Amino acid sequence: MTNSLRIIPLGGLGEIGKNMTLYEVGRHILVVDAGTMFPANDMLGIDLVLPDWGYLRDKADRVVAIVITHGHEDHLGAIPYLLKDLNLKAPIYGTRLVQGLLDKKLKDAGLHKPCPQVEVEDGERFVVGPFDVEVIAINHSIPDGVALAIRTPVGTVLHTGDFKFDYTPVHGSAPDFGRLAALGREGVMVLLADSTGAERPGWTPSEATLVPVFDQIFRQAPGRIIVSTFASLLSRVQQIVDVAHAHKRRVALAGYSMVENVKTAQKLGYLNVPRGALVDLDKVKELSPDKVVIVTTGAQGQPEAALARIASGRHKEIEIIPGDTVILSAQPIPGNEKMVSQMINRLIRRGAEVLYPPVSPVHVSGHASQEELKLLLSLVRPEYFVPVHGELRHLHAHARLAQAVGIPGEYVLTVENGTVLEFDEAGASIGERIPGGYVFVAGTGVGDVGPSVLRDRETLAAYGFVAVVVPWDFAQRALRGQPEIVSRGFVYEKESGELMTAARELVVQTLQETSRVSKRGLEEAIRQALGRYFYDQTGRKPMIVPIILE
Amino acid sequence: MTNSLRIIPLGGLGEIGKNMTLYEVGRHILVVDAGTMFPANDMLGIDLVLPDWGYLRDKADRVVAIVITHGHEDHLGAIPYLLKDLNLKAPIYGTRLVQGLLDKKLKDAGLHKPCPQVEVEDGERFVVGPFDVEVIAINHSIPDGVALAIRTPVGTVLHTGDFKFDYTPVHGSAPDFGRLAALGREGVMVLLADSTGAERPGWTPSEATLVPVFDQIFRQAPGRIIVSTFASLLSRVQQIVDVAHAHKRRVALAGYSMVENVKTAQKLGYLNVPRGALVDLDKVKELSPDKVVIVTTGAQGQPEAALARIASGRHKEIEIIPGDTVILSAQPIPGNEKMVSQMINRLIRRGAEVLYPPVSPVHVSGHASQEELKLLLSLVRPEYFVPVHGELRHLHAHARLAQAVGIPGEYVLTVENGTVLEFDEAGASIGERIPGGYVFVAGTGVGDVGPSVLRDRETLAAYGFVAVVVPWDFAQRALRGQPEIVSRGFVYEKESGELMTAARELVVQTLQETSRVSKRGLEEAIRQALGRYFYDQTGRKPMIVPIILE
Repeated sequence: MTNSLRIIPLGGLGEIGKNMTLYEVGRHILVVDAGTMFPANDMLGIDLVLPDWGYLRDKADRVVAIVITHGHEDHLGAIPYLLKDLNLKAPIYGTRLVQGLLDKKLKDAGLHKPCPQVEVEDGERFVVGPFDVEVIAINHSIPDGVALAIRTPVGTVLHTGDFKFDYTPVHGSAPDFGRLAALGREGVMVLLADSTGAERPGWTPSEATLVPVFDQIFRQAPGRIIVSTFASLLSRVQQIVDVAHAHKRRVALAGYSMVENVKTAQKLGYLNVPRGALVDLDKVKELSPDKVVIVTTGAQGQPEAALARIASGRHKEIEIIPGDTVILSAQPIPGNEKMVSQMINRLIRRGAEVLYPPVSPVHVSGHASQEELKLLLSLVRPEYFVPVHGELRHLHAHARLAQAVGIPGEYVLTVENGTVLEFDEAGASIGERIPGGYVFVAGTGVGDVGPSVLRDRETLAAYGFVAVVVPWDFAQRALRGQPEIVSRGFVYEKESGELMTAARELVVQTLQETSRVSKRGLEEAIRQALGRYFYDQTGRKPMIVPIILE
Repeated sequence: MTNSLRIIPLGGLGEIGKNMTLYEVGRHILVVDAGTMFPANDMLGIDLVLPDWGYLRDKADRVVAIVITHGHEDHLGAIPYLLKDLNLKAPIYGTRLVQGLLDKKLKDAGLHKPCPQVEVEDGERFVVGPFDVEVIAINHSIPDGVALAIRTPVGTVLHTGDFKFDYTPVHGSAPDFGRLAALGREGVMVLLADSTGAERPGWTPSEATLVPVFDQIFRQAPGRIIVSTFASLLSRVQQIVDVAHAHKRRVALAGYSMVENVKTAQKLGYLNVPRGALVDLDKVKELSPDKVVIVTTGAQGQPEAALARIASGRHKEIEIIPGDTVILSAQPIPGNEKMVSQMINRLIRRGAEVLYPPVSPVHVSGHASQEELKLLLSLVRPEYFVPVHGELRHLHAHARLAQAVGIPGEYVLTVENGTVLEFDEAGASIGERIPGGYVFVAGTGVGDVGPSVLRDRETLAAYGFVAVVVPWDFAQRALRGQPEIVSRGFVYEKESGELMTAARELVVQTLQETSRVSKRGLEEAIRQALGRYFYDQTGRKPMIVPIILE
């Protein structure tokens, strides 16, 4: 039985975000990544989404190691929750930047060195249980990202993590195609590769292509320059600092995660900031506008991030002034398009010149496009291929690419979270289906908001509610007083007098006529009568909340 | 005073949709278009958005005519509401297809010939009050679209409506550049032109480029083909019918608006359907899958449209079977991306092969791209330019193009809805600001859901509510019984027993300690105490609804 490998995807397959994959050989489990996801539009009131790691609940002692491929939130953001929830003590492997970002994250979560942390680097190999793991540097939009070649008793897995092929990267080295080809010749049983860019034709431009773009903008901008990007996109921050310095502009940072990430990156040597290049945000007003660059979070339009607050005039230190140039050096994550668009409109309304893709080529992706994905497949020539990191449409597009370069359809395994893949001497098979859904973080609660609460919120969002308080004498089967009706989010209350008066009469009448006697029966009778009435009158279906007082 | 022209934009400037523009000379008002808009994500529970035509409320007798540029919902959808609300009797000018679609729309709204309808065609000129209006055919994604050259005592306005330049259109003629150039030589005081595509470089491909694309897909598809597009995109429907016929596939229609629009278009001669090409949807099952094409609504992922119901298994007649090819011949409208993406994922999950842009070039835009916009500006050479039809970002991008081709910045007027533009002998000036916002349609109500209801819905959507019923003796200043607490959409009720018990105790304690005596004062005390308590316990801010019973 140890001569079988189970691959258990808990996140990232069928969605963008919250990546987490388990590799299981016999009783030993290797965890690769545990990330968070932004809530989708229909996850009302949810702050963050975690993978459902219920499968590990009674198996914490079987986890031999956690390996983190790179320092993005969607790959390491859930680690503190995972460690707390399962009281895991397994060692955490990751590169230097990953460990630095993780230290901060664990500290913020009130965890003091909960697990051994093992720093690894490109080319290193380590053995944990039956897993022999080789660390392979890749290019991505954060430094120090790695792919993993995981040798198991059954065969070798190549797990790419997020990647692109960048010949002229701003951090790290160009891709080592020789090593990937060597792995291919040695034999890769199964390749799991990043599908984020699988719908995009061609080849993703190098990070370095942004230098001339920024250079021209910085030369021509008449006043301040405000650049917004992901706080973790350190190569982008490095380029902005370099170009600003060349144009004798000083750089201020706005937004908590930008300030913190830059601090960590500088400390660890991942950001090279010339002496005097930085300036405190509250000192910016003392400088001439054409000597200033502000680097800020919020390129996704998140309402509480710095740029959205600037755009809507809610930022304490920064106010848009005519002559400002705002650069959105990011692409909206699917679902955020409208929010980003609103922010752009607001910035323009305040007088800023706003540059964003596709109006200006101020962003490149950190993920491989179709030609890079085909190159990877052609170098590695895996026996089996599992597209990962993407919605089903991306996985499917990636699967088509794999078939196009010669992997037979039955060797391409397109599955979603929770579908276990089993590999043994006889080949691959689709195994059991385990929970692979979402765990919601809302406020300080983890997992206490589930589907029924969300369904209620959906109804409340669309139609509001009408609560009916009924003082009821169960013995006499009669009202003990007038019913009271209160509504919110339904119709403008002050204008709805007649509607509510008639509704109250309807409740009285319903209670007189009903044959029901139980509390639940009375509630149901009120719900039906009022539901029908309000729908007839308004075409809407507010939540009816009967409250029977004994 | 009659020697001045006021242009009053009530819709389409600063948003995509609900287009409506007023032209006012002296006491005479010409209305161009009155369309609807899809609600944005943050307009909770809203079905449709109308322009705010409050400016016209006491001026209905001054409207000399309504002219509709083309038959899309965002240009004519609000007409029935407008006629009903203001009891307008002015004649409605429009091409034959517009009148046909309008007839149906008025009938559905229960209006029987409320106004004279005047059919006009390309090249025609008609005079209404001080306005001499020339009708100029343009290319768009619906046949029979027109631009308007409006000659006024002050000067000539060219109002493009939605347009593109298509040398090989499927319906109508190629653009008449000679006429536009002649207008330019005659002198155009102000050009109002469609900005939808102003961020897109290059030239929008012709509708005809889709023929070879569809032809290849139809040849290779092993089973049924389901094509989804806008019901109003009649040129697309024509091409699908033609290619289906060439491949000996019969065409069935799904979705109310598709069936109705095709019926109207056939009757008026805008769709050329070979005898026997159509088949009823309920007869499709009797045909071999490779002999079937289903044309359906729902390409925007709208949950109640046919394709979304097919994707989630809620359609009565159509169920996805392996071998089905689904074509999304449309681009998501901004804000709909996530909904469309979810629908694509669901279709793939059910076994369909799904083709959509950019994975397959199955759609072209109906709006001009940058090179076409520059061509228009160069032909017309207007004195003033007003970018219309678009969010501020699109208007701004269009303004940049105008400046690039030589219109001085001070002659480019980038304004949003409700900003009146005044033209007289002295030139243009920015006039008064009038309401230019939204009127919401929700269920059967028009305008009865306003900002305060939406704010309540926002809170309810994010956190739900907690209602507290307090039986209170105002004379004794004491409880007449235990407070009752009910919550929805806050926390999973069954697991929240302790939280609610403590909350009830807190209410009792608060009422004992408060010095407040009025109903409102008691409500406020409860709201504060519970709000603080729940935030401390959960990090969330549910709506607290105290109900004090005397």
